[in-house]
Amino acid sequence: MQAEIISIGTELLLGHIVNTNTAFLSQKLAENGIDVYHTSVVGDNPSRLMQSLKLALGRADVIITTGGLGPTVDDITTETIANFLGRKLILNRAILNGLKRYFISRKVRYPKDNIRQALIPEGTKWIPNRTGTAPGLLTEYNGKVIICLPGPPRELGPMFENDIMPYLKKRAGTSQKILSRTIKLMGLPESRVNGIAKDLLLLKPPVTVGIYAKLGEVDLRIMAKIADKNAADREIKRVENKIKARLKDYIFGYDDDTMEGSVGKALAARKKTIAIAESCTGGLVSSRLTDVSGSSKYFMMGITAYSNDIKERILGVSRKLIRQRGAVSKEVAIEMARGARFLACTDIGIGITGIAGPDGGTRSKPVGLVYIALATAKKSIVKECRFKGSREEIKFQASQAALDLARKNI
Amino acid sequence: MQAEIISIGTELLLGHIVNTNTAFLSQKLAENGIDVYHTSVVGDNPSRLMQSLKLALGRADVIITTGGLGPTVDDITTETIANFLGRKLILNRAILNGLKRYFISRKVRYPKDNIRQALIPEGTKWIPNRTGTAPGLLTEYNGKVIICLPGPPRELGPMFENDIMPYLKKRAGTSQKILSRTIKLMGLPESRVNGIAKDLLLLKPPVTVGIYAKLGEVDLRIMAKIADKNAADREIKRVENKIKARLKDYIFGYDDDTMEGSVGKALAARKKTIAIAESCTGGLVSSRLTDVSGSSKYFMMGITAYSNDIKERILGVSRKLIRQRGAVSKEVAIEMARGARFLACTDIGIGITGIAGPDGGTRSKPVGLVYIALATAKKSIVKECRFKGSREEIKFQASQAALDLARKNI
Repeated sequence: MQAEIISIGTELLLGHIVNTNTAFLSQKLAENGIDVYHTSVVGDNPSRLMQSLKLALGRADVIITTGGLGPTVDDITTETIANFLGRKLILNRAILNGLKRYFISRKVRYPKDNIRQALIPEGTKWIPNRTGTAPGLLTEYNGKVIICLPGPPRELGPMFENDIMPYLKKRAGTSQKILSRTIKLMGLPESRVNGIAKDLLLLKPPVTVGIYAKLGEVDLRIMAKIADKNAADREIKRVENKIKARLKDYIFGYDDDTMEGSVGKALAARKKTIAIAESCTGGLVSSRLTDVSGSSKYFMMGITAYSNDIKERILGVSRKLIRQRGAVSKEVAIEMARGARFLACTDIGIGITGIAGPDGGTRSKPVGLVYIALATAKKSIVKECRFKGSREEIKFQASQAALDLARKNI
Repeated sequence: MQAEIISIGTELLLGHIVNTNTAFLSQKLAENGIDVYHTSVVGDNPSRLMQSLKLALGRADVIITTGGLGPTVDDITTETIANFLGRKLILNRAILNGLKRYFISRKVRYPKDNIRQALIPEGTKWIPNRTGTAPGLLTEYNGKVIICLPGPPRELGPMFENDIMPYLKKRAGTSQKILSRTIKLMGLPESRVNGIAKDLLLLKPPVTVGIYAKLGEVDLRIMAKIADKNAADREIKRVENKIKARLKDYIFGYDDDTMEGSVGKALAARKKTIAIAESCTGGLVSSRLTDVSGSSKYFMMGITAYSNDIKERILGVSRKLIRQRGAVSKEVAIEMARGARFLACTDIGIGITGIAGPDGGTRSKPVGLVYIALATAKKSIVKECRFKGSREEIKFQASQAALDLARKNI
């Protein structure tokens, strides 16, 4: 079964809203083994929508539209679908009564315009909207299905999961699903990962591997499209083991894991505590660590020591050292890590100093130069990194590298 | 001039990433008076991409593709474009040298696979990528233009704004623009803003007003589509003044302003310095303030005091107070603000304590309860807030409220 998504709305074409509905629907369809080869967006324009419907029906079995079911004059989906099907619009009493109840329960006067939402093409099934006013529509047409969903994600989401997905699963009559496993890597550029996993990236269905680069992270995603769940799990495990054998040192997590979550898990498991002294990352490492629920068990303190004065007075970095080596130096990073550890009485201290830019760089210390240090009772280590990008991108990459250094040394 | 956007990537069809590039490009094109009537997504599949190109060229003057320019085997855009145009791929020495420089500057061994990115269709212009490796492509074809941009937003964004948009403006040769003005509000829910600005939200073209709610922010966007720039500016100003008269106290910025930027601007203008003591926001306020370039002039220190021990020992919050009132209390927030100010010798101190959840709430102190305090030489003020949402949403809203409190009291 192939599905195609048509999003309707001039606000999407103007870029005023990001099309999260298509991502949501695509993901749910893929998880249930329904292929999506095309998605598109058209404005609130009947003739262009007609053309898009025609095109989509020529290449897919299920057409899902989103948006354009509201009460206002620029909501054109229902009328256009009726014209497309060559059917009349009829007033549906059950929908109308539901609309009236909706407004009464909210103590809002029933707006006359909403009667439009009770008009549906003859012979069309409608799907109740539990979180809004626009009902969904479902109609079979020449052996294919057209489904119209409301635009607001909070209305579309529950309607799709509760009513549409079960219908599609039954119609597809297949138990084939896509299982996936994401392996998250840090410390190698995409091109290196690509070289190391080249043969796996060329695998053909039913098991395939994709590569996805993000800022400070490269993901390998294994996908298996196999009817038998156990067989799929086995196949995924087989590829996963190959990846692990080749890239073990760079893996920081799987699936929904985050770098900060992985650090937290390791700290909690080994009952270790941590304190952070940040300069160029400006509190981002602390903030990411505390995004993890339960982080108060191991995260004790973060200090953003932006001025040299704070580095000296609170973290105890020697003034002489700053003068001799500069605030952005290996030595100061180590002193910051030690200072944070000492001040907060933790097992681990992290120190980060660098130049986030866009100003402040010099020939010998360019924007993007960051020193990251880690101190424990037994050792101090420091890493020199050179990042590129905007101020925020350099901050993020530095925070990612600092968390990765912590993760490897807990 | 009409443009059409084709996004290329199986990861988009699987819903693994949200298509923010299309929203970005649509917005920029609209602002410059270039119409977009269709956008679509296809997977990493040459024959389907060919069909999409054919279809798009049949209805638009400018085709912009995004994605598929990477170094890996599933990046198929360049090859498909070459086939589509019936041109050979040739190795471009200038691109190759640029790629080598890119890796050398990062002290990374040049990965052989990246040579793919130096192969471009004969007779195609290429556009340097300042933030990544994949060059963009631009080619004229039967009086139309095909432009290929890299997928990562941090690469696509600068390339489009610096190189493509100026080219398109020149080519379009039109002076009709959409001018817009965004007014950013904090402290009122969307429904209240909607009620206050109702008449303006109903305005008809050429001047319209839209309302957009985000986490911790409501935006009103005035848009004018008028050929005469001065007339458009005048019309926008007229509506803007109405909004200001009604909502002045809630406006924290305009257009690309951010809350942290507005706070920074106010601090710099009045030559004031600030220090932050955070508990539940975990460093997020510091991190946001230091996202602003030049923040080292006014931002001196941030302390994430997650444990009571750190609150007492470093910020000087009285142990008795914590025992009597609890760490999440008005009194502790004030002591934290005073402690931060004292420790860092700044003009302003901010203290934030609360429960970010999802655990740790009680009947009297539920998840989402946050106290935000501000201390100066002359006064201390504290605000009680109750936020809803996930841990990260509560953190963000609390950081937004803390920055807003600072902004109003500089």
